[in-house]
Amino acid sequence: MSLPKRVQIYEEGPREGFQIEKGPIATARKIELIDALSKTGLRHIQIVSFVDPRRVPGMADAEEVVRGITPAAGVTYTGLWLNDRGFERAVATGRLDIKGTLVLCGSETFLKRNQNRTCAEQLAAQTELARRYRERGLPIERGLIMAAFGCNFEGEVPPARIADLAGQILAIAEGQGVALDYLSLADTMGWATPEGIKRVVGAVREKFPTLELALHLHDTRGMGIANAYAGIEMGITRFDAAVAGLGGCPFAGHAGAAGNVCSEDLVFMCEEMGIETGIDLDTLIGCARLAEDIVGHPLPGSVMKGGSLGRLRAQAGR
Amino acid sequence: MSLPKRVQIYEEGPREGFQIEKGPIATARKIELIDALSKTGLRHIQIVSFVDPRRVPGMADAEEVVRGITPAAGVTYTGLWLNDRGFERAVATGRLDIKGTLVLCGSETFLKRNQNRTCAEQLAAQTELARRYRERGLPIERGLIMAAFGCNFEGEVPPARIADLAGQILAIAEGQGVALDYLSLADTMGWATPEGIKRVVGAVREKFPTLELALHLHDTRGMGIANAYAGIEMGITRFDAAVAGLGGCPFAGHAGAAGNVCSEDLVFMCEEMGIETGIDLDTLIGCARLAEDIVGHPLPGSVMKGGSLGRLRAQAGR
Repeated sequence: MSLPKRVQIYEEGPREGFQIEKGPIATARKIELIDALSKTGLRHIQIVSFVDPRRVPGMADAEEVVRGITPAAGVTYTGLWLNDRGFERAVATGRLDIKGTLVLCGSETFLKRNQNRTCAEQLAAQTELARRYRERGLPIERGLIMAAFGCNFEGEVPPARIADLAGQILAIAEGQGVALDYLSLADTMGWATPEGIKRVVGAVREKFPTLELALHLHDTRGMGIANAYAGIEMGITRFDAAVAGLGGCPFAGHAGAAGNVCSEDLVFMCEEMGIETGIDLDTLIGCARLAEDIVGHPLPGSVMKGGSLGRLRAQAGR
Repeated sequence: MSLPKRVQIYEEGPREGFQIEKGPIATARKIELIDALSKTGLRHIQIVSFVDPRRVPGMADAEEVVRGITPAAGVTYTGLWLNDRGFERAVATGRLDIKGTLVLCGSETFLKRNQNRTCAEQLAAQTELARRYRERGLPIERGLIMAAFGCNFEGEVPPARIADLAGQILAIAEGQGVALDYLSLADTMGWATPEGIKRVVGAVREKFPTLELALHLHDTRGMGIANAYAGIEMGITRFDAAVAGLGGCPFAGHAGAAGNVCSEDLVFMCEEMGIETGIDLDTLIGCARLAEDIVGHPLPGSVMKGGSLGRLRAQAGR
């Protein structure tokens, strides 16, 4: 099977990173990173989440961040919300691309910890959410399945369950007469291996062959890039990633683990394999170094330490 | 294509790591790590290199390290040498598994910097070395091609050149009437991507279909585990690796980059994919934490931070 010619990377570093960092980070510095990312060739940047500031104090300034950025032409800025209140806050900014996402979860235990809902409650809530998106004339862009590859609290998550959940999300969308652009499978707690990626993607594809899939990968156990490669081998062309490997999940139950798959490492792999990303690697590496400076501690990205190959190739004259 | 059932991991952390660490490390602590690694299920551990102590001061105590370890049953301990003097030192210890390796290099510029020889000089030297190994009745176990996937000083290394070098190594062995156990392809400077691995392995396989191949991977740009996965997909079952990701090359021309592919991350990936390694992951993670304590700074391994999944599975009851 030939690899895709082009991969889209959805940058989530600002949202993933700043929601989990312990120390307070100045709003101006968050804006500085987002504005720098806007100049890399990235087309989609998720910049904030609208969540309870008592639970996620690092996102208390979400509105200020959105107001402060200098939007670049051709770049879409999004925010994350998990409930009505968050959604209304996102809409109220007037500066974000507002599209609906329908979220289900492969693990009920994680869902309870993360959003205090059972799977049935989540399904009902997403059904109601879809109805209201349609009422307001908002597009529903994608589905998302959290904990699609395993769960710290439930262990293995059977691929067949993920395929079932995909069907439930598609049914909600169909009930509102809309077609999703794609379904994102999230390795929320870093359980996936390359073979696990292929198994789950395969199980969903078998039931829904025409559904476009995306991957949201965490690098908790160092598998992020290998899992992305397995996804690319399966023809997946949409990946969430975080500059410098920012991020992690505040509710996943372990500290000190790495965050999302690292954007610039993923760009490096793709571009070196002849897969276009539209992103300038060295500019993105500059953003990764800026991110380290902003958070004030080392971040897990590798290419920002090892360096890209462009300069070395130029010096070698080939 | 189905994946291999079993993979062998050759631990090189003590040799790779202690030769590059800046600070002096007490001999007793090197021995402590090696003895801990001996209890993980690893079958092969490369513990020292016999090199010029003026160039690699971290290995000046190589003999003391070899004398100090407590060899475990079923574990083979090896050393690295690059010239006659080093070879004689290794033999003189009387405690190491002495087998010949024939080394060529994909990049003449790197070879000059690393060993001060041209490719032709290296070929002649290896031919002479093979002759002397045979004279002394020593087995020649493997060939090794450095810089098989790219070079910081020469840029791309064509896969066809690596296939040629493989032929040269095989010809030297044949000239002495011996068959190599395997040929190791080294990504000395961290240029490989998963597709690059497949291209070079494919090129060598096409010319020498029955030759067993191994991979020596550096994680300089975060591709180590993905590259190992690509190797596993190609049916490769022998990998060098370093606990905690210790290592790096003192002559590769950049500082601060990661070392070898991380042993426990590789064990994690293999075991989680149902590929046996014979290694107890949690014991190896303990060694990785010990290695961090010994070198006194964070090391790049991921699973030692994110944790294995065994305990989580047990808690989840599945």
